[in-house]
Amino acid sequence: MADKYVDMDTLKYMLYDVHNLEDMLGRERFQDHDKESLDLFIDSTKTFADKELFPYMQEVDEKPAYHKDGTVYVHEQVKTMMHKGGELGLISAPFDYDDGGMQIPFMVQTATNYILNAANNHLPGYTGLTQGAAELIIHFASQELKDTFVPNMLEGKWGGTMCLTEPQAGSSLSDIVTKATPTDEGHYKISGQKIFISGGDNHFTENVVHLLLARIEGAPKGTKGISLFVVPKNRPTPDGGLESNDVTTVADFQKLGQRGYATTHLGFGDADDCQGYLVGEPNKGLHYMFMMMNGARIAVGLGSSAIASAAYYASLQYANERPQGRKLTSDGTKDINDKQALIVEHPDVRRMLLLQKAVVEGSMSLVMLASKYYDLENTATSPEEKKKYNTLLEMIIPVVKTYPSEAGAYSINNGLQILGGYGFCSDFILQLYYRDIRISSIYEGTTGIQSQDLLGRKMTMGHGEGAKLLMAEMMETIQAASQLDSLKGYAKILGDKLQLTQQILGHLMPFAMKGDYERFLADATIFMEFFSLVIMGWTWLDIGVNAQQTLINGNGNYSDDFYESKLETLEYFFAYELPKTAGHAEILMHPTTVTIKKEKEYIL
Amino acid sequence: MADKYVDMDTLKYMLYDVHNLEDMLGRERFQDHDKESLDLFIDSTKTFADKELFPYMQEVDEKPAYHKDGTVYVHEQVKTMMHKGGELGLISAPFDYDDGGMQIPFMVQTATNYILNAANNHLPGYTGLTQGAAELIIHFASQELKDTFVPNMLEGKWGGTMCLTEPQAGSSLSDIVTKATPTDEGHYKISGQKIFISGGDNHFTENVVHLLLARIEGAPKGTKGISLFVVPKNRPTPDGGLESNDVTTVADFQKLGQRGYATTHLGFGDADDCQGYLVGEPNKGLHYMFMMMNGARIAVGLGSSAIASAAYYASLQYANERPQGRKLTSDGTKDINDKQALIVEHPDVRRMLLLQKAVVEGSMSLVMLASKYYDLENTATSPEEKKKYNTLLEMIIPVVKTYPSEAGAYSINNGLQILGGYGFCSDFILQLYYRDIRISSIYEGTTGIQSQDLLGRKMTMGHGEGAKLLMAEMMETIQAASQLDSLKGYAKILGDKLQLTQQILGHLMPFAMKGDYERFLADATIFMEFFSLVIMGWTWLDIGVNAQQTLINGNGNYSDDFYESKLETLEYFFAYELPKTAGHAEILMHPTTVTIKKEKEYIL
Repeated sequence: MADKYVDMDTLKYMLYDVHNLEDMLGRERFQDHDKESLDLFIDSTKTFADKELFPYMQEVDEKPAYHKDGTVYVHEQVKTMMHKGGELGLISAPFDYDDGGMQIPFMVQTATNYILNAANNHLPGYTGLTQGAAELIIHFASQELKDTFVPNMLEGKWGGTMCLTEPQAGSSLSDIVTKATPTDEGHYKISGQKIFISGGDNHFTENVVHLLLARIEGAPKGTKGISLFVVPKNRPTPDGGLESNDVTTVADFQKLGQRGYATTHLGFGDADDCQGYLVGEPNKGLHYMFMMMNGARIAVGLGSSAIASAAYYASLQYANERPQGRKLTSDGTKDINDKQALIVEHPDVRRMLLLQKAVVEGSMSLVMLASKYYDLENTATSPEEKKKYNTLLEMIIPVVKTYPSEAGAYSINNGLQILGGYGFCSDFILQLYYRDIRISSIYEGTTGIQSQDLLGRKMTMGHGEGAKLLMAEMMETIQAASQLDSLKGYAKILGDKLQLTQQILGHLMPFAMKGDYERFLADATIFMEFFSLVIMGWTWLDIGVNAQQTLINGNGNYSDDFYESKLETLEYFFAYELPKTAGHAEILMHPTTVTIKKEKEYIL
Repeated sequence: MADKYVDMDTLKYMLYDVHNLEDMLGRERFQDHDKESLDLFIDSTKTFADKELFPYMQEVDEKPAYHKDGTVYVHEQVKTMMHKGGELGLISAPFDYDDGGMQIPFMVQTATNYILNAANNHLPGYTGLTQGAAELIIHFASQELKDTFVPNMLEGKWGGTMCLTEPQAGSSLSDIVTKATPTDEGHYKISGQKIFISGGDNHFTENVVHLLLARIEGAPKGTKGISLFVVPKNRPTPDGGLESNDVTTVADFQKLGQRGYATTHLGFGDADDCQGYLVGEPNKGLHYMFMMMNGARIAVGLGSSAIASAAYYASLQYANERPQGRKLTSDGTKDINDKQALIVEHPDVRRMLLLQKAVVEGSMSLVMLASKYYDLENTATSPEEKKKYNTLLEMIIPVVKTYPSEAGAYSINNGLQILGGYGFCSDFILQLYYRDIRISSIYEGTTGIQSQDLLGRKMTMGHGEGAKLLMAEMMETIQAASQLDSLKGYAKILGDKLQLTQQILGHLMPFAMKGDYERFLADATIFMEFFSLVIMGWTWLDIGVNAQQTLINGNGNYSDDFYESKLETLEYFFAYELPKTAGHAEILMHPTTVTIKKEKEYIL
């Protein structure tokens, strides 16, 4: 077992230095907070994670959640996560004071979430989904529903879930068929099946509150006929008790990873006695759900970066402790009389470690940037400001969800490789992170779906106004980097990549204008790979500007080595990752249509 | 569970059409064979695999091999694999008639091995290692050792292993310390520990014959002091029985994948009673072992391609059965009144399937090419011919081992993605292939080690003569493709990539000439990624030439669609995979030395 899973200095550096949390604290919503009080919250989360999450990392995998006779049994630490985590404020922290929250910035929630996920990614989903479910109720439901459900959820007494997916529909929400039938008593009768419900049941919390998408009878077809309901596992009775609400755990899904995080198949209304309480207006369910989507996608991005962080420190520790082989001498041979080198000294191993570090810290900065936009949007003092930050967030969100997921898996793959044969063995943790992170490219919208969103919606948003706004932000960083001798070469490279982006869009957009959307979007995933690297080039240049300026000014909170290491990782990224865009550009501008189905089908 | 794991038409097409097995049958060693008799062997292997291997694929994973009280318990089908497989000739087939074999071409063995591994990659290792161990004895040991051990091994009554790795040495064989002490009775006393021994023990075969590397007392340091020994688990007694040879199974390794294939930690001579029998001459052990290395590396390549093949057919089947989402209409939206599309119709899914197909069939052809070189080397009628094919094999062998392993994992990753959430679930097989194939990049020399071999040894071999010979072969294919209208564009692209290869080597070689081998080899793994794609471009162009010519001549054994599908996959490869080399080239010619350790260490 490794000793370290996250570098707290780097996390706080991203929060306070690169992304200026303290500027944010000047906003009215956050005025009661200062660095000291927020550090206290962050550090107590770290203490909690050190004690209650990290030590159980291998155990939650080896003793996974399981379903038996209608009940889902989970690891003991799920209780701790919900109850102690609830006490700590991990569920309630971002909400309004009026709703029982602490009004902390989303940036801080991202930091604490990062710590929890790096320590043990199987457990924070239980509180995270409870928080998400509570958020939907708080924002869109009636006061009565709020009063009935929210307080117990924020305390961690009751869990919460999101019930979207159905067996026949998968990612295609327009095809869901779960039915809601109005009754005279104000509630609806729910009937249907939901699958892949994370945290769908557990034997510790006395209730689970499902936020469920269903169609009210007679609603329009497709996404415009979907409504949102609160459907508790147990419904509160007038006397303050709970009675069963006809929600059945039909089965669970045993999985490749995140095995401590129960994934369930739920049945609603098998005995025709399942009550659902409408949230907001009918047929607006998907709209409400989508209001939460950006937060959820940031959460997947940070979770992936966090898993990759834990994997990085595990392989770094191994590389620093494991002697093997020898350094090459000047005639290209090895001298058996030399003592064995630590594997961290081999360039190929260092390359893999730098890759891990570049992915981990780069995506940590990216999720923090997204969280900053989120806070700026939600505390904006003018409609223009709100629009600006909403647009910036919308522009980067598919990358925020996808790059940490895909590159995180790639980085862990390299981390596992550093351990050689031990990397493949269950006694070592790398194989577990390798399995866990694989879900990230799938949930909250697969990489394919995020890529369609990026190229099909975001790049064309407002006739390209969104793209222009984002490029302007990037140009600011390029401008700042150009003023620094050590960085102006990188500034030039990134500027060239922005031009390349324009060129690629200039090649692809005409297909959309001609109405050939299939061709326009056929290589959206390749465009995602390309544009993610451009975004990460920007992210690293931004970190570099901060690190270099701090070194020049000599006013940093950390050692010079700390800043030098960031500059070294920037160098790695521009030398080893960003150049891959040259290949992507060739692919994207290739005339082939081989992936588009023809009359005749050749795949055999 | 999928229905199909390998396409027999494609396998035979590679064997007979693309790589001309029948030409090989003109050689003296193979003169008793014809297509009919070999097809019978191949088809009976397929029948065996259909019945005894494929149906147990998920079960061998769910009930993995385990160690208890010094015994390793394995799945029942291990017995079937050894005994029935032995009867079928799966162990003995390639050996001389005199040694109990059938003198089949290595190409055919590659084909049958491919089938076995695609059906169930957990089991063929047991016979494969037995075959490898027998091969060492047959080639290098005394007649007495041959008579004592080989017959039972070829029948599958006794297993065999290779014992190289030790805890403190890993990939660095120069550091092994297992000791062999001469005795007056002719044998040696062995003492030491070996780890990661595949098939190291099982409770079915009555004996396991270990081929073990050890140092005879007083031997030179490093690789020049390593000898090879036969060390059976049980030693034959004069009366024809067996007695324990003081070989202990200390522990097993529970693993990410290939869980049905036992991996053990063995102790030799704990009670000072372990006899080892020297193979050949002292201190030549590593030399003997290396004579087997090319065969072993082809085996890893074919095994990886085979796992990727099974994964491809599993995701293809899913894509052909699963409806989800709708095709885009000409205004870029979806019409909810349209019926759901099968996911195979979505370009992004087709891209992933074509990727899988390109990797699977391309690497199938590559391992077949390597096997052809192997046969041509071993049946050469002149020293020049032998040298030529040995050189060609040596040149491509690091790619043959690495590309199917790395790209195979990448293709399975995409296959898993096609299944969405189901891909992450244990009920579906993709997650198992995803885990199984991960070992391929590690054993028989990690990707890092193969890459050092490719750039450091092979590209410089004979002052570049090897590279020249290989390029000449590639030029022949380019020449042939240039004559065909549909392929000359690809011929031009591949020619350009060969020039790019020269340019990269022109950039890197001077570092070696200046004695800066660390810098020369620092990016060897990136060079491997680059050169693998060039080799695969050649491989696909070669398939394309055959397919196109067959279509023109109208004399094919298969439908036109079959050949068209190969040409379509060639198109995919040149549009989506080969262009990545543009990125690799940028990386390889970048001036950075960030991965080389400096005085000062910044990684934090």
